[in-house]
Amino acid sequence: MTAIPTFDPPVDVVREAAARFGTPLYLYDATTLSALAVEVAGFGGPFGFTPRFAIKANPTRAILRLFADAGLSFDASTTHEARRAILAGIAPERIQLTSQMLGEGFEDLVREGVGFTACSLAQLERYGQAFPGTSATLRINPGEGSGHNNRTNVAGPDASFGVWHAHVPDALKLAARHDVRLRGAHHHVGSGGDPARWAEIASVTLDIVRTMPDVTTVNLGGGFKVGRMPGEPSSDLSAAAAAADRLLREFATETGRQLHLEIEPGTYLTATGGAVIGSVQDVVTTGAAGRVFVKLDVGMAEILRPSIYGAQHPIDFLARDPAGELGGARSLLVVGPCCESGDLLTPTKGDPEGLAPRELPLPSLGDLAVVGGAGAYCASMPAKHYNSIPAAPELLVRADGTLELVRRRQSLDDLLRDEL
Amino acid sequence: MTAIPTFDPPVDVVREAAARFGTPLYLYDATTLSALAVEVAGFGGPFGFTPRFAIKANPTRAILRLFADAGLSFDASTTHEARRAILAGIAPERIQLTSQMLGEGFEDLVREGVGFTACSLAQLERYGQAFPGTSATLRINPGEGSGHNNRTNVAGPDASFGVWHAHVPDALKLAARHDVRLRGAHHHVGSGGDPARWAEIASVTLDIVRTMPDVTTVNLGGGFKVGRMPGEPSSDLSAAAAAADRLLREFATETGRQLHLEIEPGTYLTATGGAVIGSVQDVVTTGAAGRVFVKLDVGMAEILRPSIYGAQHPIDFLARDPAGELGGARSLLVVGPCCESGDLLTPTKGDPEGLAPRELPLPSLGDLAVVGGAGAYCASMPAKHYNSIPAAPELLVRADGTLELVRRRQSLDDLLRDEL
Repeated sequence: MTAIPTFDPPVDVVREAAARFGTPLYLYDATTLSALAVEVAGFGGPFGFTPRFAIKANPTRAILRLFADAGLSFDASTTHEARRAILAGIAPERIQLTSQMLGEGFEDLVREGVGFTACSLAQLERYGQAFPGTSATLRINPGEGSGHNNRTNVAGPDASFGVWHAHVPDALKLAARHDVRLRGAHHHVGSGGDPARWAEIASVTLDIVRTMPDVTTVNLGGGFKVGRMPGEPSSDLSAAAAAADRLLREFATETGRQLHLEIEPGTYLTATGGAVIGSVQDVVTTGAAGRVFVKLDVGMAEILRPSIYGAQHPIDFLARDPAGELGGARSLLVVGPCCESGDLLTPTKGDPEGLAPRELPLPSLGDLAVVGGAGAYCASMPAKHYNSIPAAPELLVRADGTLELVRRRQSLDDLLRDEL
Repeated sequence: MTAIPTFDPPVDVVREAAARFGTPLYLYDATTLSALAVEVAGFGGPFGFTPRFAIKANPTRAILRLFADAGLSFDASTTHEARRAILAGIAPERIQLTSQMLGEGFEDLVREGVGFTACSLAQLERYGQAFPGTSATLRINPGEGSGHNNRTNVAGPDASFGVWHAHVPDALKLAARHDVRLRGAHHHVGSGGDPARWAEIASVTLDIVRTMPDVTTVNLGGGFKVGRMPGEPSSDLSAAAAAADRLLREFATETGRQLHLEIEPGTYLTATGGAVIGSVQDVVTTGAAGRVFVKLDVGMAEILRPSIYGAQHPIDFLARDPAGELGGARSLLVVGPCCESGDLLTPTKGDPEGLAPRELPLPSLGDLAVVGGAGAYCASMPAKHYNSIPAAPELLVRADGTLELVRRRQSLDDLLRDEL
């Protein structure tokens, strides 16, 4: 477990962004994101390596462009994400579609060059009918996986992702019937974060690959844990890389097959590269023996992870005026602006129902708040438009320090555009 | 606990909607919604009554128009919701703004005639400065409330909503300083559903109103429980109405003050009036001792309540072809299409982490699914655009049975429009 490059937004940048674009807003840092891309690109593999970015973590065009320029390839969870990446100027050949539902238009994407992962026998059947004589990747559920937060597993008997390991022989027959060569094997290990466990599950996947003679590429997914809170450890990529290197070399020695390695982190590449900037709307107390609530204009409509997972994000306050000062440290609950009791930014870790006050300097109305670790699954997975709140803008701090608006703030009219 | 008017979408309407507009889609029923409006309008009060619809539950223009035509007034949780209602043609005087943050533009709304509820001392101060010599409502936290699902309370020491009861004297002084008359008192009791408890908390609110001499209207919020699942009881509105009637008459006898009553349900007015229609994308199994997953194109991007609350929604399958048949009953888990282990439509009640299989007839790929009880907090509070999934369209079954598209399906271009 090592430190991970982390964006610590400079106070003058935060003040400038808030003054120019209003709050709330998402703020990403190109320097941090590039450093993360370098780390992931350095994972390597003994017989070739392709790092992919899991688009779902943050599909904003500027982020996709940045990672494309850094040499990453991409994994799309839906046909929409694949099309979005193509519209961002990414070559179809650098995109792999690994979707829980095929949706309309998947055939067009494949014809344009997007790689295809069959996530179920039914998907493989549909692919085989449409594209006989080609190759595809098979997503496998090897029967084991590590948990994602405290959610159900991404693999194992309780997970719906991929072809159950005992059904792999059926997949091989089905592929043969359509003359489809299963060149790739895909398994998303999950977000557990323990490199020993990661290696253990990767080894199970490789055992399955032994039964798949055409496989030349193995994709071990993402699932590298990121510590967002101070002192919270992140996955040690080099430990996982060393394990993968060892496993692939052993596999090659035993089987004579040199497998190309892919990984596809989403969280690891983006989580620590972004923040949400808000401003303090209110400070409410519930009596001497009660609570002190700091109410922001940032809540579940911008960042849902605390409300859905009990996820922990660092929160810092900042006097709006450079000459201003925050109050003394207090035990604070930080909440969002929605009319919803679960709109809470300081839940108990892993328990969205629990209240976990933090010792923070007491801000005043109008002061700024920086919610850190918000580059992944924040702008891409909020309860968007709840309470009819228009989506917040997204900004990128370029490597030269300039602030670039990459997505404008919505207006109320934008929310009403589709109503008839 | 009584039965509540509930939309049971006719199979031919579901098939027609799916054929014409594709899936997923939201389907509302005007007849059911109108019946619910009649029930709420009949709640009544001994000295005057105003029923309001809590817009946040479903802010679609067609729904707002339907309730406006049914004679309801409205409660807005944000300035955006209030503006949205005005743009839907609702007179500002019928809208009350009860927002956790004032946001820009609240002064314009008040000038146009929107009623104002101060939800904190800071809001009251800001209102008083802008509108001295007028009147306002005060949202109060009486120190007690009933839980919302298994979330933190909406009132009590752990809730940030409203002015803490011990601070009401401060609010009275502050209002007097700005010559603002506190004509209304507001307290959202919460979603507990027990009428005895509801009456008990309403009584505490009235005790506080005794100390507020200018109050002529008391708003007891919403929070009436709705049973979405077969056999699950709903709040008995008549029991709550009887309790309110008794309390207000007693209050009048004791104090000589005849209070106008308001309530503002959201869930009760809409939950059972809508469904989400999806289609089966896949059926995946994890071995003989494992699970059977039915994967829909409906998931957390359309309906988040199961994933965030462990909420229970009825799910029915329907052969797409009228001549088709479903399979035999099986123990099924129903999941959404997102690349997210928590995208689950059959969680354990109150526990989004838990898996609760249901005995349902096994559908085939392409068959239709009706997720019921989806009129409230579904289209208004999903993880919209997660996995870059465009928002689903909304349809209304008019009283004459015709199917009307009230919100068109988004395209991918709509999601990219704001990118620069």
